[in-house]
Amino acid sequence: MTNDATPRHDGRAPDQLRDIRMTRNWSDHAEGSVLVEFGRTRVLCTASFTEGVPRWLKGQGTGWVTAEYEMLPRATNTRSDRESRKGRVGGRTHEISRLIGRSLRAVIDTKALGENTIVLDCDVLQADGGTRTAAITGAYVALVDAIADAKVRKLIPAKAEPLTGSVAAVSVGIIDGRAVLDLDYPEDSTAGTDMNVVMTGRGEFVEVQGTAEGTPFARAELDALLDVAAKGIADLTALQEKSLAEQARDRVL
Amino acid sequence: MTNDATPRHDGRAPDQLRDIRMTRNWSDHAEGSVLVEFGRTRVLCTASFTEGVPRWLKGQGTGWVTAEYEMLPRATNTRSDRESRKGRVGGRTHEISRLIGRSLRAVIDTKALGENTIVLDCDVLQADGGTRTAAITGAYVALVDAIADAKVRKLIPAKAEPLTGSVAAVSVGIIDGRAVLDLDYPEDSTAGTDMNVVMTGRGEFVEVQGTAEGTPFARAELDALLDVAAKGIADLTALQEKSLAEQARDRVL
Amino acid sequence: MTNDATPRHDGRAPDQLRDIRMTRNWSDHAEGSVLVEFGRTRVLCTASFTEGVPRWLKGQGTGWVTAEYEMLPRATNTRSDRESRKGRVGGRTHEISRLIGRSLRAVIDTKALGENTIVLDCDVLQADGGTRTAAITGAYVALVDAIADAKVRKLIPAKAEPLTGSVAAVSVGIIDGRAVLDLDYPEDSTAGTDMNVVMTGRGEFVEVQGTAEGTPFARAELDALLDVAAKGIADLTALQEKSLAEQARDRVL
Amino acid sequence: MTNDATPRHDGRAPDQLRDIRMTRNWSDHAEGSVLVEFGRTRVLCTASFTEGVPRWLKGQGTGWVTAEYEMLPRATNTRSDRESRKGRVGGRTHEISRLIGRSLRAVIDTKALGENTIVLDCDVLQADGGTRTAAITGAYVALVDAIADAKVRKLIPAKAEPLTGSVAAVSVGIIDGRAVLDLDYPEDSTAGTDMNVVMTGRGEFVEVQGTAEGTPFARAELDALLDVAAKGIADLTALQEKSLAEQARDRVL
Amino acid sequence: MTNDATPRHDGRAPDQLRDIRMTRNWSDHAEGSVLVEFGRTRVLCTASFTEGVPRWLKGQGTGWVTAEYEMLPRATNTRSDRESRKGRVGGRTHEISRLIGRSLRAVIDTKALGENTIVLDCDVLQADGGTRTAAITGAYVALVDAIADAKVRKLIPAKAEPLTGSVAAVSVGIIDGRAVLDLDYPEDSTAGTDMNVVMTGRGEFVEVQGTAEGTPFARAELDALLDVAAKGIADLTALQEKSLAEQARDRVL
Amino acid sequence: MTNDATPRHDGRAPDQLRDIRMTRNWSDHAEGSVLVEFGRTRVLCTASFTEGVPRWLKGQGTGWVTAEYEMLPRATNTRSDRESRKGRVGGRTHEISRLIGRSLRAVIDTKALGENTIVLDCDVLQADGGTRTAAITGAYVALVDAIADAKVRKLIPAKAEPLTGSVAAVSVGIIDGRAVLDLDYPEDSTAGTDMNVVMTGRGEFVEVQGTAEGTPFARAELDALLDVAAKGIADLTALQEKSLAEQARDRVL
Repeated sequence: MTNDATPRHDGRAPDQLRDIRMTRNWSDHAEGSVLVEFGRTRVLCTASFTEGVPRWLKGQGTGWVTAEYEMLPRATNTRSDRESRKGRVGGRTHEISRLIGRSLRAVIDTKALGENTIVLDCDVLQADGGTRTAAITGAYVALVDAIADAKVRKLIPAKAEPLTGSVAAVSVGIIDGRAVLDLDYPEDSTAGTDMNVVMTGRGEFVEVQGTAEGTPFARAELDALLDVAAKGIADLTALQEKSLAEQARDRVL
Repeated sequence: MTNDATPRHDGRAPDQLRDIRMTRNWSDHAEGSVLVEFGRTRVLCTASFTEGVPRWLKGQGTGWVTAEYEMLPRATNTRSDRESRKGRVGGRTHEISRLIGRSLRAVIDTKALGENTIVLDCDVLQADGGTRTAAITGAYVALVDAIADAKVRKLIPAKAEPLTGSVAAVSVGIIDGRAVLDLDYPEDSTAGTDMNVVMTGRGEFVEVQGTAEGTPFARAELDALLDVAAKGIADLTALQEKSLAEQARDRVL
Repeated sequence: MTNDATPRHDGRAPDQLRDIRMTRNWSDHAEGSVLVEFGRTRVLCTASFTEGVPRWLKGQGTGWVTAEYEMLPRATNTRSDRESRKGRVGGRTHEISRLIGRSLRAVIDTKALGENTIVLDCDVLQADGGTRTAAITGAYVALVDAIADAKVRKLIPAKAEPLTGSVAAVSVGIIDGRAVLDLDYPEDSTAGTDMNVVMTGRGEFVEVQGTAEGTPFARAELDALLDVAAKGIADLTALQEKSLAEQARDRVL
Repeated sequence: MTNDATPRHDGRAPDQLRDIRMTRNWSDHAEGSVLVEFGRTRVLCTASFTEGVPRWLKGQGTGWVTAEYEMLPRATNTRSDRESRKGRVGGRTHEISRLIGRSLRAVIDTKALGENTIVLDCDVLQADGGTRTAAITGAYVALVDAIADAKVRKLIPAKAEPLTGSVAAVSVGIIDGRAVLDLDYPEDSTAGTDMNVVMTGRGEFVEVQGTAEGTPFARAELDALLDVAAKGIADLTALQEKSLAEQARDRVL
Repeated sequence: MTNDATPRHDGRAPDQLRDIRMTRNWSDHAEGSVLVEFGRTRVLCTASFTEGVPRWLKGQGTGWVTAEYEMLPRATNTRSDRESRKGRVGGRTHEISRLIGRSLRAVIDTKALGENTIVLDCDVLQADGGTRTAAITGAYVALVDAIADAKVRKLIPAKAEPLTGSVAAVSVGIIDGRAVLDLDYPEDSTAGTDMNVVMTGRGEFVEVQGTAEGTPFARAELDALLDVAAKGIADLTALQEKSLAEQARDRVL
Repeated sequence: MTNDATPRHDGRAPDQLRDIRMTRNWSDHAEGSVLVEFGRTRVLCTASFTEGVPRWLKGQGTGWVTAEYEMLPRATNTRSDRESRKGRVGGRTHEISRLIGRSLRAVIDTKALGENTIVLDCDVLQADGGTRTAAITGAYVALVDAIADAKVRKLIPAKAEPLTGSVAAVSVGIIDGRAVLDLDYPEDSTAGTDMNVVMTGRGEFVEVQGTAEGTPFARAELDALLDVAAKGIADLTALQEKSLAEQARDRVL
């Protein structure tokens, strides 16, 4: 058991995020793009807006938001084979792509989007823990920019409001008996329990995914994790708002 | 909002499981096998014990437990294409297979298993909601039988105890503002929030996976869901114990 | 050479089938479904009726009947890898799927079926020899039920008669110089010659597939095999008729 | 019903083969190679001899013979997509490859072959019916040459006799009520019943594969087909012997 | 360094092609077909003409010419696995297919072709170096025949002229310090630099692909290679013209 | 025809490179990494050093250098599907990966590398023409860093010199009749001829790949393209040297 006064391996307080940076319009081509950094974790999130929807949605007057997550082969400490070369997408990649898509759809009114599709590509350029939570947090910002861009280009009406709220995500875990926020890779490897929490800016839950790595966990631990997660989401929401309030670098079209 | 006295569409109380049946040794070939039924959901769980471990584990003196989940094409109301014909495993299948594997490994001491592998195959013969939770609950029973069989065949020492506890799973959801247990397909389709909870027989959490389908949910709802899940897991644990206490149909070797 | 009076390893006469069971409406969802058992071989056959035909048949006023065969990984004594995980369907699976489809189409008048498709899924839950012949025999019964169901739902006219006859299949082989009927796995492994025969209820041939496993066979042996097969098909046809004459368990829709 | 005096569309008698040509050593590289022609059907059969066997056979002192069949995309009247581009091998290709392999193994003593592998590649350069039977008939000749070559190179002992006989194949069918031999494509398209027969040079059966295309067939028709097939196999056996007796074109190494 | 008077290993002069043969209408089915031989390298080139174009070209009034290259498994000295069995097309195969397609499109006026597609299949039956250059040279001749056939069948207007010139290809390399033409396999294996040159009959470049195998090369060497290539292309162009001037074997339709 | 004084669309002189930036150690994990920018084209090149070689090279005392190229889905103006989702690597990706690998091996002494492997991953984060040439130019710098790192870690002897020179690449093309250097995407789309040239720092050729897009080109044009390419390579070589002379950002291990 660790005393709350004991600092984490990188000096953070238990409920403190890593340095978070969001560079908007990192890409010249995409309708929205953000290079999001949670400490050394770097994810390039691009939002691609296209008119029309997949065949199974046609004619229903609703839009579609989906996501794809992938890691560069040397994003991690040892090189992984590319999934394109293996000829199939791994279970973990599938699972995270689906999670990101669900998380963003939780704050989208697909009717207000019209028959348009937005694809969020989240490519992990460097991984140091928390890549899926960084991806969701950054993808939300890219999504906001892509919707604004679609309004400017009159692809959706200026009065439409496809966004019903904001969304962010963070990981939490039990380390030395203490709930800590935003685990980096060394912490993630040693945490007894690992939980990813996706919440709206209003503090409601979108996804809760907790996994006992090794020892099963008690209800009290779960409660502690949810508390620290809520604090982290509030901080991330503020950072998203701050980033969106700034003038982004101009896209070069 | 529904009064707690209002019956569910099939007459169950909010915290009542469907009829649960576990037919052990349904298969003649497998070291352990259970046809598990949660109402009309039927999953055939087989446990295959093989000596040796995957290459990446060799020489470490530890065993391996993994799982594969798949649905027959007409397990559902409309036929789905086979993943073998599509040439790749879908994201949902991958995700559930990984969940089942993690859940069972949570109660396994891989050292005590020795360098042996147990594969749990969970094939959904008929689906009516809760296939993954039925699979975990049934697979645990098949796993117990496979370990007992390995002891009889002296593939692991009689004194070894690879199992550190029992594990079961159940789905819970918010319907009409009320937390209900063990959703069938019609309930699953209408639930605002859907959560799968995997717990040990001692009441600790192994996995918590909650998803807002539509509206994000509040902490109070989450708490209510966890309460009803704990009650369901306790009931399932008792049923697993009862099933394991019975003499199973003889395997025909 | 074996005297005809010598019993087989399980006590059967040379021209005697194993215990045959056909449980209709085993599934709640499928338009027709049969759990067929040839001794310990168990195949779940479901018939899925859908309106419309594949693109290459559109506008010709004819229907389509096709089949897919697959084995669960632990249907056999040692576990096999799933074809969905391998990313491709094996030669044997393909070959048997095609055989089942051809066999059923031999008793179908596709004009009378209208532009509708019936897919027969034959999933081997447990294998003990003769899985393809059990599949054909059971799939025919599921097909009859699916057609009756389509008439009730007025998807095909009540007066239409898509079925031109019945079809069943059985394996035969030469063991110890004697032609024997309906080989189980131990017999199949030792038979010098193995033949699968598909015939109509009127005693005509639909498919004859004989293979010398080891020693090539003479015309006289071929003749003896065909004789015993004809006897077996007559018995199976009677069993199909009996099963279809019974009131099946109600489907729960 | 056709009188036996009525000529076939190309003037052949009912039991007459097409012009058969076998050009040995068509390839410079392969240990055995034959360009076999059954009329306008042209199949290039190469036999590749390699030391060693697949892993699952190692250490048992026995060899392995296998075959792969494939059609060039424009072997037929309309172009087909390449299976390599589709990323998977079709059911028909698999089925025929397996048939060719089994047929050749029926005349191979794998013990006498030692731990060596021979792969028969049968590539259809032009198709006009009977490609699988031409492939078997030609592959046998290529196999004989590859074994002779292995003896010369002392890869198998000069005294070893891996071949236990010869093998050939021919198609037969019922056209206008008459059994005819060696169907070309126009005949194959109209035949009510189609049968491929593989026999040894001694007149024993290796494979019999008969399929009712449309109308099921009676035992008398089956008997007539087997009679005409036996005549055709005898003719093909004589042609194989004649070809093997000739001095083949020198391989250019 | 080699004196220009020193003969090559097969006696050819440095700027001398191997024996080149082009057998037109080698296939009965294809609209154009050529068995092209560069010494022992043999490539079967078929041109398949079909009405219509791929979806992405529809309605633009232009045609499409594309190519696919593949090697038979035993075209080479040691057998290679089939790409269809491996389930994917290798990088080399892709690269050469694309090169052949681009080379032929360089002499095609797609407007004059109308909305029609010509696929050139180049299957290497035997390989002894220079398979891609033989394929391009032969495919051009097959293309000419397919266009002539389409005019006869009035699929393109008699006055249309889809061909804007002729195209041929040859390999060149530096061996012992001397630029040599049309390398066979032994030369190709030892050449320090290897270049494939595709040119029109008018002596203009379509593709130049030079690769240093081992030692990088100087501008002077590049110049010498281009000179000898130009000479070879002129010779091949004359041979193409001679072949096209002859009456081809009748196609048997 | 354009006068040499006419500026290009972005104001560059005909033989002027775009702004070139190379950020070394962009990644914390890789042994060498460079974010290379040719104007708006951005490629992340990482060099992964691993002990050991692929199986086919084992025991020969030589190392291996290989490369993989891939584009992020939204690197371009319109989003492309991921090759991992399509289940196969496209022809263009394969071709460029092979080109990069060959180019780097041209300056590697694999004996001096010992039995070690270096994989160069070149991921295009943003594309604006010339991605493959930027990749080669940047990958060389990453390769130098990875080799230096291996010496520091004593994985190769300090005295070994695996590098035999430097390598860089640039695209050239004919636009308005004038040879221009380092085409961006708008230029690349309009160029009549496009050539990629890979050269060593000593001015020798490693690869020359010229393609007529539309009109075939004359020898004089080819000569002009090679001249301007040589100038560009000299400039890039100087920039590589300058980058390598600087102190790179520390890797955070």
